[in-house]
Amino acid sequence: MLATLIHGPRDIRVEDVPDPEIRRPTDVLVRVVASCVCGSDLWPYRGITPMKKPTRIGHEFVGTVEEVGSDVRSVRRGDFVIAPFAISDGTCVHCRNGVYTSCEHGAWWGGKDEYGLPVDGAQGEWVRVPMADGTLVATLETPDNGLVPSLLALSDVMGTGHHAAVSAEVRAGSTVVVVGDGAVGLCAVLAAARLGAERIVAMSRHADRQAIAREFGATDVVAERGQAGIAAVHDLLSGMGADAVLECVGTKASMEQAIGTARPGGRVGFVGVPNGGPELPLQKMFDDNISVGGGVAPVRAYLDELLSDVIAGTIRPGRVFDLELPLKRAADAYRAMDERRSIKTLLRPDLTL
Amino acid sequence: MLATLIHGPRDIRVEDVPDPEIRRPTDVLVRVVASCVCGSDLWPYRGITPMKKPTRIGHEFVGTVEEVGSDVRSVRRGDFVIAPFAISDGTCVHCRNGVYTSCEHGAWWGGKDEYGLPVDGAQGEWVRVPMADGTLVATLETPDNGLVPSLLALSDVMGTGHHAAVSAEVRAGSTVVVVGDGAVGLCAVLAAARLGAERIVAMSRHADRQAIAREFGATDVVAERGQAGIAAVHDLLSGMGADAVLECVGTKASMEQAIGTARPGGRVGFVGVPNGGPELPLQKMFDDNISVGGGVAPVRAYLDELLSDVIAGTIRPGRVFDLELPLKRAADAYRAMDERRSIKTLLRPDLTL
Repeated sequence: MLATLIHGPRDIRVEDVPDPEIRRPTDVLVRVVASCVCGSDLWPYRGITPMKKPTRIGHEFVGTVEEVGSDVRSVRRGDFVIAPFAISDGTCVHCRNGVYTSCEHGAWWGGKDEYGLPVDGAQGEWVRVPMADGTLVATLETPDNGLVPSLLALSDVMGTGHHAAVSAEVRAGSTVVVVGDGAVGLCAVLAAARLGAERIVAMSRHADRQAIAREFGATDVVAERGQAGIAAVHDLLSGMGADAVLECVGTKASMEQAIGTARPGGRVGFVGVPNGGPELPLQKMFDDNISVGGGVAPVRAYLDELLSDVIAGTIRPGRVFDLELPLKRAADAYRAMDERRSIKTLLRPDLTL
Repeated sequence: MLATLIHGPRDIRVEDVPDPEIRRPTDVLVRVVASCVCGSDLWPYRGITPMKKPTRIGHEFVGTVEEVGSDVRSVRRGDFVIAPFAISDGTCVHCRNGVYTSCEHGAWWGGKDEYGLPVDGAQGEWVRVPMADGTLVATLETPDNGLVPSLLALSDVMGTGHHAAVSAEVRAGSTVVVVGDGAVGLCAVLAAARLGAERIVAMSRHADRQAIAREFGATDVVAERGQAGIAAVHDLLSGMGADAVLECVGTKASMEQAIGTARPGGRVGFVGVPNGGPELPLQKMFDDNISVGGGVAPVRAYLDELLSDVIAGTIRPGRVFDLELPLKRAADAYRAMDERRSIKTLLRPDLTL
């Protein structure tokens, strides 16, 4: 089959690799209908995360179950399934606590499973799914093609934006600031609107992203950053800052901006992978009672709930995909996202060049 | 009247100062029945917080209302009142949000009020209370003398320990770790027990404090610190860490210990004044979804609720006072706490030498 490998900085290749097989009775094989490139995939692409050897890549996919291990109970051949970006058993104490990303037997796409067996990356034609009962969620019916982008968004970005909103305790009537206008930030706007936020300030400098933010429910847009951005938010929110701030970037500057725009007693939900060092303005957090919570999103915990809304058509997170390419052109997808020509690029194995 | 001033490191003097007067119609004058020394008072005492000139000190007191400004509605002459460590109007947006410590018109004992008028410290015979309606809470009846220590504990340490527990979302059945065995840490144990925690691990190396912690509801005591302390907690809690960790110290080591003993998805409630620099293990917080919330405790928000329990006798936070001295011997009180001969020392203006 074809699968994407990263060989080094800016070196993405789609190559022939061995077809996956059922290795454990809890596995299933999924034929990928759609996968995509994540902002975090750009880290090794840009050489920020060093790598030693060619590695399978991609952690978001939806597809069709084609082969089922003998112990699998929750999905069957022909099911359309959504794979969260983390593999989890669904039964350990952390999964039961809703923290599926800390599963005692968990694994990551492109890594190794608990038995040391390699796990396929998502940017390929097929994927072996370990612990399928815990990991996958099947739709009741095979969805229309038009729903595929929104279902794919449930693999990561929509669940991650939702996690930011849940961590910041967004509720009906909340005032919300979203820091970051990538796919996760835009989905965080959508999540905040879905939870009933009254005022949603999207911090974005790009017209195309501002437009999606408004479509998703942003009531205001602030283009300034840093201290000017903080001041602009305070101007909008009666001088007092937001109840909830959703940090969807992960840099030191974005975290400072997030904490700077929260009101006393406010909450920052952070889902941007931290790459700005360990410093937080702890004294300000203390003085103003601003909490920081969140982390790598246990999207499996939110999948059923968000899936219902996608099926019902009440949310369309797939709007963040503004480019669709054949899997074979994965290198172009990375380039488009790296150069910010695309917010998020969808890859379809079934498309021809 | 007599009041305590700090002149410099280890230089505490009880001196004659002018009697306070009603300065604004929202003021009341309180004759202090009891005040005390706080762990945070030791910071200037030890020279950690530099100071330029002799300053009135102390921020915890209970007493009797003796004179009432013309606009005051909620307390009257003769009332026994509890003063939270922060002065607040009770009506601004932050107070309405429960964040009384961020009051738009707030002030601190020993500082200046919103009109620039000096505010008395609590370690004295009398205190002028600005914004009395917002700040003070009166008991229904004059309490027995034996209740005074527990009522005084509501000024700060009990409300602060409770804030740690609330910030970490302690609830019925929670597993809890308390880092710090000072008066606040011990009150945090009591607060966790009061909220229904099932397992409470007190981290303490001192036999006298361990005893109070057990009396307050600690089910386990861990004497080790650092990595050994973290390992000991994990041994006790099935290897997984606590639902809620109450950080009641404020050093870098204590914060690391707190985050290290939380389970994935767990919450750290921090109330120790940060003095360890701005670093937090952000990557671990992200990977394990551990949140950090809390800050300077809005004890006014909790006063009514905790007061009921003190009056009913279901909590006795006053147990943290293990030394009682006349106000005139304030210097001895500081010395006893500095040398760890006393957990917390109560000062009574009415005692003779």
